[in-house]
Amino acid sequence: MFTSSVRPIPVDQVEAFDHDVDVLVVGFGCAGASAALEADAAGAQVVILEQRSGGGGSSALSGGEMYLGGGTSVQRACGFDDSASAMEAFLLAALGPDCDPEKVRLYCENSVAHFDWLVDQGVPFKDSLWPTPTWVPPTDDGLMWMGEKAFPFADLAVPAPRGHRVTADGFGGKVLMDVLCRRVSESTVDVHVDTVALRLVVDGDQVVGVVARHFDTTVTYRVRGGVVITTGGFADNKAMLAEHAPALVGLPVNSDGGDDGRGIALAQAAGGAVRHMSAGQVGISLIPGMAVRGMVVDDRGRRFINEDVYPGLIGQAALFKHGLRVWVILDEEAFEAVPEVERWGVRPHHVAETLAELEAEIGMPDGSLVSTVGEYNRHAENGDDPYFHKAPEWVRPLRSPFAAIDVRRGIVPPEHGGSSGGAEVFTIGGLRTSTEGEVFDLDGRPIPGLYGAGRATSGLHSWGYISGTSLGDGTFFGRRAGIAAARRSSTSAE
Amino acid sequence: MFTSSVRPIPVDQVEAFDHDVDVLVVGFGCAGASAALEADAAGAQVVILEQRSGGGGSSALSGGEMYLGGGTSVQRACGFDDSASAMEAFLLAALGPDCDPEKVRLYCENSVAHFDWLVDQGVPFKDSLWPTPTWVPPTDDGLMWMGEKAFPFADLAVPAPRGHRVTADGFGGKVLMDVLCRRVSESTVDVHVDTVALRLVVDGDQVVGVVARHFDTTVTYRVRGGVVITTGGFADNKAMLAEHAPALVGLPVNSDGGDDGRGIALAQAAGGAVRHMSAGQVGISLIPGMAVRGMVVDDRGRRFINEDVYPGLIGQAALFKHGLRVWVILDEEAFEAVPEVERWGVRPHHVAETLAELEAEIGMPDGSLVSTVGEYNRHAENGDDPYFHKAPEWVRPLRSPFAAIDVRRGIVPPEHGGSSGGAEVFTIGGLRTSTEGEVFDLDGRPIPGLYGAGRATSGLHSWGYISGTSLGDGTFFGRRAGIAAARRSSTSAE
Repeated sequence: MFTSSVRPIPVDQVEAFDHDVDVLVVGFGCAGASAALEADAAGAQVVILEQRSGGGGSSALSGGEMYLGGGTSVQRACGFDDSASAMEAFLLAALGPDCDPEKVRLYCENSVAHFDWLVDQGVPFKDSLWPTPTWVPPTDDGLMWMGEKAFPFADLAVPAPRGHRVTADGFGGKVLMDVLCRRVSESTVDVHVDTVALRLVVDGDQVVGVVARHFDTTVTYRVRGGVVITTGGFADNKAMLAEHAPALVGLPVNSDGGDDGRGIALAQAAGGAVRHMSAGQVGISLIPGMAVRGMVVDDRGRRFINEDVYPGLIGQAALFKHGLRVWVILDEEAFEAVPEVERWGVRPHHVAETLAELEAEIGMPDGSLVSTVGEYNRHAENGDDPYFHKAPEWVRPLRSPFAAIDVRRGIVPPEHGGSSGGAEVFTIGGLRTSTEGEVFDLDGRPIPGLYGAGRATSGLHSWGYISGTSLGDGTFFGRRAGIAAARRSSTSAE
Repeated sequence: MFTSSVRPIPVDQVEAFDHDVDVLVVGFGCAGASAALEADAAGAQVVILEQRSGGGGSSALSGGEMYLGGGTSVQRACGFDDSASAMEAFLLAALGPDCDPEKVRLYCENSVAHFDWLVDQGVPFKDSLWPTPTWVPPTDDGLMWMGEKAFPFADLAVPAPRGHRVTADGFGGKVLMDVLCRRVSESTVDVHVDTVALRLVVDGDQVVGVVARHFDTTVTYRVRGGVVITTGGFADNKAMLAEHAPALVGLPVNSDGGDDGRGIALAQAAGGAVRHMSAGQVGISLIPGMAVRGMVVDDRGRRFINEDVYPGLIGQAALFKHGLRVWVILDEEAFEAVPEVERWGVRPHHVAETLAELEAEIGMPDGSLVSTVGEYNRHAENGDDPYFHKAPEWVRPLRSPFAAIDVRRGIVPPEHGGSSGGAEVFTIGGLRTSTEGEVFDLDGRPIPGLYGAGRATSGLHSWGYISGTSLGDGTFFGRRAGIAAARRSSTSAE
């Protein structure tokens, strides 16, 4: 699986330690930065190990959305009332059964305070709303809907837009990580770049250090408080994907290429438990503004979801249930209704005067689109969608001429953050942790000295995913892990 | 997760050993029995631990099918030519990407020899074929199709029926386990019943024993050759299901109630790796002979699979893609065409003169069944099924009067092996093992002294499943694990 063993080393086999630290954070993405900043603020001596030559990680390549709510200043400025309980109800439904309810509750109750902490760090958010479904606003708008108004979520929780997008021209992850990296550089945290954590050092059941490699040099760290694993997921590790999440094998990955799962395996080899390892986020290359005005169909020409949900839910259904063989069907009126700025330069792959021609050209069964669109239109005349309950504002009969977009063709150009394979994926499953970031063993007990946050952990999630719960979960529980590791350090020093 | 710790105990913390054995088999289902018999035949001193008061396990409650082929005597007597390579091609396709190709190859190449070994043990098979899709033949026929003739498998591998059903009146698992238990009782193998393996004993990286509990007594075993984990899956452990296979939570389980996953966790805590933990077999309560003559639809009245495949594939699609909200739609002619013996006393839950009435009665969207059956019939007039490629022999327009069966109602009565919840599930994922049953660690190296077989391991499987690959995999790789553990014992004794 890995080029070198992930087994922990007993401390008596380590001849000498090069460094002695309170808190060692492994990985310098958003979770690692947040853990380090809070451990530093708590007075701990902190070192971050980063395998790349600088901070950022996969966080820096993300859209820069944070799922936050309960009444942030951005929400209030845009005219939305929100509550922690409505946010909690939405997340419990959207992230799926068996998400961590205690983490979701904490996350929602403290969401406004977490937003304020981010603002205090210098993370920019803009008080303006992008009103229609999208992956990332094509403008610099700071607030967006994440399917809160769509069926069935609107019936389960009072809707409010909670996608807080870091102000940026395009993707905001880079801006977020620039801010957090700058804050780290202003602190007393040491960052050891080009340094890979190879093995944990253990003393009995306790994690007491790390053996790392800096180019061809071995570097050893003795750790008093805790090692915090913030190394990201395992989407870049094909062997691990094949073992745990084979649906994701072979697809383009949304990462910096370093999501190799080693941090997860290091913790597992020290006794750590994992959960939901087959879960994945699937960003398919559809333009949500087109999909919602038309329909999304599988290779038998059948719809399978209400197109106004968070686009990641369409992506998960497209991959896990329909093998990514998915098309957006729309008519000229729908295409023209999409604001130019939101089209990303996309043109339909197929156009036809009749649905029979369109289905034949795509290679769908004879009669498939004719019957699907026929049924859709028949109900749409009354503004209804009894099949999938798309909100009435998006329901309208589709009329000739028709068009189809093949999402596997990778319709969003790379310069706009798109991929070439029709979908970009990452893993959601990972280490099982407490609300304080402690890594649990198979007995459900914390492993002393071992912490985790971000995508190396299962975090808030179960199988569902909403944009902004990666950066949100990573920064929120990264902070808590950093505080807990620092506290353990000061306790053990007494 | 468990009522007592699963962490291994260092050998120096065990005061004394009550028993000294070559091979300790944990679990007395088909895999454990096979491992014990072969280890015994190799001259090893063998003890089986079984938490129940006797052997059998979940194997004894199974249908008693073994997926075997390549030209067994039963296949030949029924007039079928088969080859190991055709069997291998089918299994590679049916068990899904990322199944273990080396295990599949070995299993197919040695399938005739394994069949002969089973016959030598006294397992009865009958030289007669049940010709149409079914879960278990309602007769005592010994051979059955497992979807080999269905799309897309018929195009990928020369079809032959390979479901070998242990001769029985009803389910055959009991007969199989009676034979294997009798063979064990005739051997020198000791069976310690009412004995639960609590922890593995380790000496460094090596497994050297087991601490068990017999009622309120602790019993310790020192093991020279190997501990063989054959404890079954984790379908009875709700916490483990929620962590790894939440789609299965809350459904009736096909097991003896003892598939608690403890054996998997014991091995994991000693460093063992797992794979495909979210995979599950789903036996939905449809009568395959009815489904294949009509259609299976979701709650929007849409088909989603060719109904002539192995029924477990319909079950997996029904649960994982359609939340079990699935109905069999058929007409009077289809119902009457099902042989009485194969109806299991089932009557339709809904009947109607028109599809509009039927869909309204079920609560499906207005027009859903009308359009689905309309499309189906239009193509069926020509014997075609361009949507899902059901074989022409099963394609015929459906005509009034119509009927529907709700699979969630649990249509097969308990006395016929049915469940009450519409589906019975078990887990497929588990320990990652070598072809010799060695349990791999996270580095991909065998853990010395630790073996596994049966549903405690991932075995042959990936995400797909075919009836008979549990008993087949369990007995075949159980035998190999027993041989390997015995060999290690004799080597270490030299």
